[in-house]
Amino acid sequence: MAGDGSDQRALQYEQTLMYGRYTQELGVYAKEEAARLRESGQRRSVSDRSRTLDLLEYDKGRCAKCRICTVRCQKFLISRVGEDWIFLILLGLLMALVSWVVDFCIAICLQAQKWMYGGLDSNVFLQYLAWVTYPVVLITFSAGFTQILAPQAVGSGIPEMKTILRGVVLKEYLTFKTFVAKVIGLTCALGSGMPLGKEGPFVHIASLCAALLSKFMSLFGGIYENESRNIEMLAAACAVGVGCCFAAPIGGVLFSIEVTSTFFAVRNYWRGFFAATFSAFIFRVLAVWNRDEETITALFKTRFRLDFPFDLQELPAFAVIGIASGFGGALFVYLNRLIVQFIRKQKAINRFLMKKRLLYPALVTLLISTLTFPPGFGQFMAGKLTQKESLVTLLDNRTWAKQGIAEDFDYIGHSQAWKHPQLNVFVTLVLFIVMKFWMSALATTIPVPCGAFMPVFVIGAAFGRLVGESMAAWFPDGINTDGTIYPIVPGGYAVVGAAALSGAVTHTVSTAVIVFELTGQISHILPVMIAVILANAVAQSLQPSLYDSIIRIKKLPYLPELGWGHHEKYNIRVEDIMVRDVRYITLNCCYRDLHNVLLTGHLKTLALVESCCFLSSCICVFVCLCVCLQISTEESSFSPTRPVPQKPLKPALKRPSVVERPTEIPTGKKHTYLHKQLQTTEFPNSRLMKQSERKGIGYLIDPKGVWVMIAEWEEKQLDEQVNFNNCKIDPAPFQLVERTSLHKTHTIFSLLGLDHAYVTSIGRLIGVVSLKELRKAIEGSVTVKGVKVRPPLASFRDSGTSSSENEATELHKLWDRHKSMSLPREHTPSESDEKSQ
Amino acid sequence: MAGDGSDQRALQYEQTLMYGRYTQELGVYAKEEAARLRESGQRRSVSDRSRTLDLLEYDKGRCAKCRICTVRCQKFLISRVGEDWIFLILLGLLMALVSWVVDFCIAICLQAQKWMYGGLDSNVFLQYLAWVTYPVVLITFSAGFTQILAPQAVGSGIPEMKTILRGVVLKEYLTFKTFVAKVIGLTCALGSGMPLGKEGPFVHIASLCAALLSKFMSLFGGIYENESRNIEMLAAACAVGVGCCFAAPIGGVLFSIEVTSTFFAVRNYWRGFFAATFSAFIFRVLAVWNRDEETITALFKTRFRLDFPFDLQELPAFAVIGIASGFGGALFVYLNRLIVQFIRKQKAINRFLMKKRLLYPALVTLLISTLTFPPGFGQFMAGKLTQKESLVTLLDNRTWAKQGIAEDFDYIGHSQAWKHPQLNVFVTLVLFIVMKFWMSALATTIPVPCGAFMPVFVIGAAFGRLVGESMAAWFPDGINTDGTIYPIVPGGYAVVGAAALSGAVTHTVSTAVIVFELTGQISHILPVMIAVILANAVAQSLQPSLYDSIIRIKKLPYLPELGWGHHEKYNIRVEDIMVRDVRYITLNCCYRDLHNVLLTGHLKTLALVESCCFLSSCICVFVCLCVCLQISTEESSFSPTRPVPQKPLKPALKRPSVVERPTEIPTGKKHTYLHKQLQTTEFPNSRLMKQSERKGIGYLIDPKGVWVMIAEWEEKQLDEQVNFNNCKIDPAPFQLVERTSLHKTHTIFSLLGLDHAYVTSIGRLIGVVSLKELRKAIEGSVTVKGVKVRPPLASFRDSGTSSSENEATELHKLWDRHKSMSLPREHTPSESDEKSQ
Repeated sequence: MAGDGSDQRALQYEQTLMYGRYTQELGVYAKEEAARLRESGQRRSVSDRSRTLDLLEYDKGRCAKCRICTVRCQKFLISRVGEDWIFLILLGLLMALVSWVVDFCIAICLQAQKWMYGGLDSNVFLQYLAWVTYPVVLITFSAGFTQILAPQAVGSGIPEMKTILRGVVLKEYLTFKTFVAKVIGLTCALGSGMPLGKEGPFVHIASLCAALLSKFMSLFGGIYENESRNIEMLAAACAVGVGCCFAAPIGGVLFSIEVTSTFFAVRNYWRGFFAATFSAFIFRVLAVWNRDEETITALFKTRFRLDFPFDLQELPAFAVIGIASGFGGALFVYLNRLIVQFIRKQKAINRFLMKKRLLYPALVTLLISTLTFPPGFGQFMAGKLTQKESLVTLLDNRTWAKQGIAEDFDYIGHSQAWKHPQLNVFVTLVLFIVMKFWMSALATTIPVPCGAFMPVFVIGAAFGRLVGESMAAWFPDGINTDGTIYPIVPGGYAVVGAAALSGAVTHTVSTAVIVFELTGQISHILPVMIAVILANAVAQSLQPSLYDSIIRIKKLPYLPELGWGHHEKYNIRVEDIMVRDVRYITLNCCYRDLHNVLLTGHLKTLALVESCCFLSSCICVFVCLCVCLQISTEESSFSPTRPVPQKPLKPALKRPSVVERPTEIPTGKKHTYLHKQLQTTEFPNSRLMKQSERKGIGYLIDPKGVWVMIAEWEEKQLDEQVNFNNCKIDPAPFQLVERTSLHKTHTIFSLLGLDHAYVTSIGRLIGVVSLKELRKAIEGSVTVKGVKVRPPLASFRDSGTSSSENEATELHKLWDRHKSMSLPREHTPSESDEKSQ
Repeated sequence: MAGDGSDQRALQYEQTLMYGRYTQELGVYAKEEAARLRESGQRRSVSDRSRTLDLLEYDKGRCAKCRICTVRCQKFLISRVGEDWIFLILLGLLMALVSWVVDFCIAICLQAQKWMYGGLDSNVFLQYLAWVTYPVVLITFSAGFTQILAPQAVGSGIPEMKTILRGVVLKEYLTFKTFVAKVIGLTCALGSGMPLGKEGPFVHIASLCAALLSKFMSLFGGIYENESRNIEMLAAACAVGVGCCFAAPIGGVLFSIEVTSTFFAVRNYWRGFFAATFSAFIFRVLAVWNRDEETITALFKTRFRLDFPFDLQELPAFAVIGIASGFGGALFVYLNRLIVQFIRKQKAINRFLMKKRLLYPALVTLLISTLTFPPGFGQFMAGKLTQKESLVTLLDNRTWAKQGIAEDFDYIGHSQAWKHPQLNVFVTLVLFIVMKFWMSALATTIPVPCGAFMPVFVIGAAFGRLVGESMAAWFPDGINTDGTIYPIVPGGYAVVGAAALSGAVTHTVSTAVIVFELTGQISHILPVMIAVILANAVAQSLQPSLYDSIIRIKKLPYLPELGWGHHEKYNIRVEDIMVRDVRYITLNCCYRDLHNVLLTGHLKTLALVESCCFLSSCICVFVCLCVCLQISTEESSFSPTRPVPQKPLKPALKRPSVVERPTEIPTGKKHTYLHKQLQTTEFPNSRLMKQSERKGIGYLIDPKGVWVMIAEWEEKQLDEQVNFNNCKIDPAPFQLVERTSLHKTHTIFSLLGLDHAYVTSIGRLIGVVSLKELRKAIEGSVTVKGVKVRPPLASFRDSGTSSSENEATELHKLWDRHKSMSLPREHTPSESDEKSQ
């Protein structure tokens, strides 16, 4: 599975049935990407130079005044355009328009379905066909379209944004193709009436917008090329996404922070608020201009009474909603993962469905739409209603079960759907909750752009309504004993339930704020907060959040969060989890020592200590890859003329490729010494080769006859002392003391995006902690392979800002090529095991 | 001024008239504190040991079963008590009680004043006396009480919490004494009816509660001694403070984050929400139980219509409120600072008032209460109303100026105060705003525990009301042209104004959320958000926030924030701001080189490079203080038996104190060599002494005759190569490359709490950037002295967790003592200049 790479330049993403997953190690991808960028950068600089020359010649022929004027205008434009708020306003405007257009199209799609269904009421079978075919066609189109244009557009997008904001580069996630695929795919998917949400995809769409806008604006000013600025803008874009989706600016900002960030710079707070407010404003103004609304109000306006929203004695019921929602949320996440894992495990089904990619979406849609067919089973679960209509009716401030039985109540408009001549309203609600629950969990696995927030929100509202109606039936005159009769408002319970369940699934508390902004009423603040917190407490102790669950399914690089309330994390110290067997070299070691250390394993970095007895106070990390390769990179700024082979070579092909080596290495005069040294460190992983060299056999097919001589010469060189003079040594590796707590270690690792840290005791190196150990300590077991998470701050990428980093990746790349061309490594089963998982 | 130290163990805090300021450098304080802690730690460990022995003997005489049972119970208790949520619930409960009791007492105080004033209505003079004397007495008592018990309790407390959460230790701010002083002082201050707020002090009180509770709980479990946990708990406590003050859990969390944090760990989010929700809940439940309220509702409940809260065409008016509030907020901060600076500058007044400390509070109170005297000028500005009453009337949903003139409107209850027979309601409002504006700015300078949030909030509401009433008078039938008449709601404008002005003064956007929670209505969300964002944009470009302004006035250690929208920060690179003249030593230097480097300035750290030609790739920082002092600390764990002199010695006294030296240095056999070395590095700052030594004069009064010999011996030692073997070398100083942007540098500095960072280019040391340069680059000019901000993460304090840091401070301490006992440094005028400011 790991073998079949894709042709496109991407973090080797494996297209599976629903979510897909990453098979490539991030480090490998980073190396290739760095090499590519370096090359294209060189190419570009050449073309730039020629263009400048053209311009100069052109300028000579023009009048000077005109030029000055143009330059001034340009400068003014750049200085204006470069300001954050212009960017944020543009982003907000754009997203509001996108959101409104998407909503508009979805509404038309849904109306069309209703119209078709309504027009065919003479024949039930035709009605059924219309009811079922329409969503199947839409979903199939959405799945196919996304598949073809940009498979990255599938799913929510929040897990990917979370990963990107932590500093990992997932470049293909922010392209124009993905944008188009996501917007059109989402519109079709939601237009089908399936229980899917638009919130997650909107976070992704907003980020796409920001990335594209940033690229577009960089034509005017250089500021847009700054990496940290882009990260800030992406964070703001996530807020805009949620904000313009629900017209909830505050909730949007908070939700996006909770869902995507680990550490949040309060400095960037205003960006999110500014853009989200502007976006929500425009989004609502568009509705007013379109005569949908009279003025700007909430999206799902409620009209609960203000003077006595709820009684103190109702609080236990709200708490029950919270706790039950916590269990429900955890169950939802578990169910969702279970479905994915079940289908992945069934190899036969999986293989069949992989071939007929569109079959799975069609089948799932068919199943769901059959069950919701109004004259069929749908009549027992208000199947006629769209998601939006259900939510509006659930938040209604009238009580459905006023008389205990639903008959006497005059259901107006959509509320009628909840009334069934034979069934109690409670039964309808229970059926609705149960059916929608598994349907939503199933529907969100369809490979179309879709979120799970809204379906969960509706289920939560239904559950809250159920509890509220029960309370209203139980206490028809309200609970208050003070004389005034305040009947119970089941709509309030629905609000609480919606916030609690969506909070439990996403592990956020800001759903409370979203609920207030969605309903336009904040009177239930305390019940909502209590329920949300209880739901979070329960859900967090049972399951990861939906987004973290998807991160695991997709195998995105991540570091798990510390759970809450586990005070052990303060008591576990680094000395309990560190690896004590650190491989190191000393300053005065010879090449043979280095050779031997390298033979013991495939290390990427080596600890370089001052003296062997470990008494040195100065520890340096030595990016070992090899001492000499690096010199060639540094002194001659050696860059490969051939691109790195995109298709990984199969093991059988590796040995012959060795032949190619001599042609690859530049053989200028300057490099003869380096060339020799190259060999000494090239073989550590190939025992066979080393042995053959020792015997002086020189089995290598060598057209120029250089290699045999070199092999003998090298033997002598191995006893020389290593010359560290020009080595890539990181003199400041991160160090911890042995008593640093797990909690602090986690904080430092996630703040700085560390990969590993050395543990020292009074200057003596006593161990090393890597992400793997840390994750093991947090989780108890390893579930995902440890991949280096790039530092979110220290990531200067495209530009040549960080010469050291570029050189390091260059090094990695070179090293990697050597590895791939040397013999297959029989002695490292661990890595291959992990890859073949 | 720098000379007169205080006797108490505190960061030398200078008691000035209003705010006080810090005269001591943080570094110096840290050293002394570390020495003290070390000593007390040793003492404690001795007493601990003896106690354990006692227990052992005691245990022998008891039955084993009992003991096991006790241990088990204790373990269970510890495991329960150690959990975060128990702590947070206790904190919330405690703070809700405190908040409620304080509110209750304030209400009684205010009622008493009203009752007195009402009872004396026969005689205007007596009435005036009662009206004026009451607040003067209360404020004077509050000022005096605070002064005597804990001067740290003065003021808001938010600036201090901001500093503490950034990792600076301001220990005396979190003591029980301060708690008592703050609670009682605040109650009296607010009971006087002055325009003061309770929100800032409540943040401080909650933090005090958390610190004390943490100390108390540490009796049960060891978890409470963890430093990073305590920081997390303090952050949660700040949220609780705001939350239980306004019954606004969400706003509280957000406001406290915005006001106190720079980087925020989303992981800790739930703590704040949990504690603040619980606290707000209990706070409101207490009101219900006390029969103040029928059920849990908002504190300042509004009853605006839900269906059509505002018209789109009213938005420009809201925007105007926002912009005007921005200017108003900046003016308020400026005025507040101006008053403090004016009185500080007037040396004569200052000296007089410093002697009669209680005179200033009394005078200010007298002035303000005279002006608000209802039969006097107070009748034109609703002087009769308390702050709470004014706010309730301002948020009223009825329109005051319905008929253009106020006569026909039936003012009910407190609203009557706004009606004046001769004056228009507009005039009353304008007078109220203008008078309250300067009164609030003045009142918040009184040295009592008080905040400025609530007064500003009320002024903002009045301003909003003014605009709203004007709009209502301008468009009596509303603006909407659709046929239905929706009159304008001036109360909505008041809500917008309150949020905007308080947001402008504090530089936060979360005041919007606070406003929704306070009023219980969220229908005005878009106008409020727009106004708050505009107000912030204007205010932030004009003035620092009120809290930052106080931080500057108090000279608390801080690093300024990056403003918004200045894209230059992305373009400035480290190479533009770094200091290129870095003093360094090489690995193979001799003591004389070291000596010479030390002579050139009073450096705390020295760069140690591998070779002189700067070509080395390995740079290490060498905590120079001195090579040998440190050995004495490390090898013999040398600890001073005498405490560090608390009173700084005056220059004239310094020379004779040299005599004391020999008695201080332990002269065990082991230390003879160290002793010698000690001398070589002891003299760098005292030229005179060095010269006298060279001549072999030995002017030192030396009872044991050792010193002269040593002086000669040392000359030889100076030419020996420095032995770095046991030196305190930081092998991993933070490094930047020359092209790192200012923006990223700022982020890294504030994330890691760095003091300085070295700039390298391909492994060569080319410069150094410290907090000072960074601040200069951000501000353009230096306003506050650079003090080391301690890393918020890497701060293991009391416990022996970090041996290296303790040793470093120990070193500093030793070094400092040497400095203080050597001759006055004539060649370092810069430092003394700064001190004498």
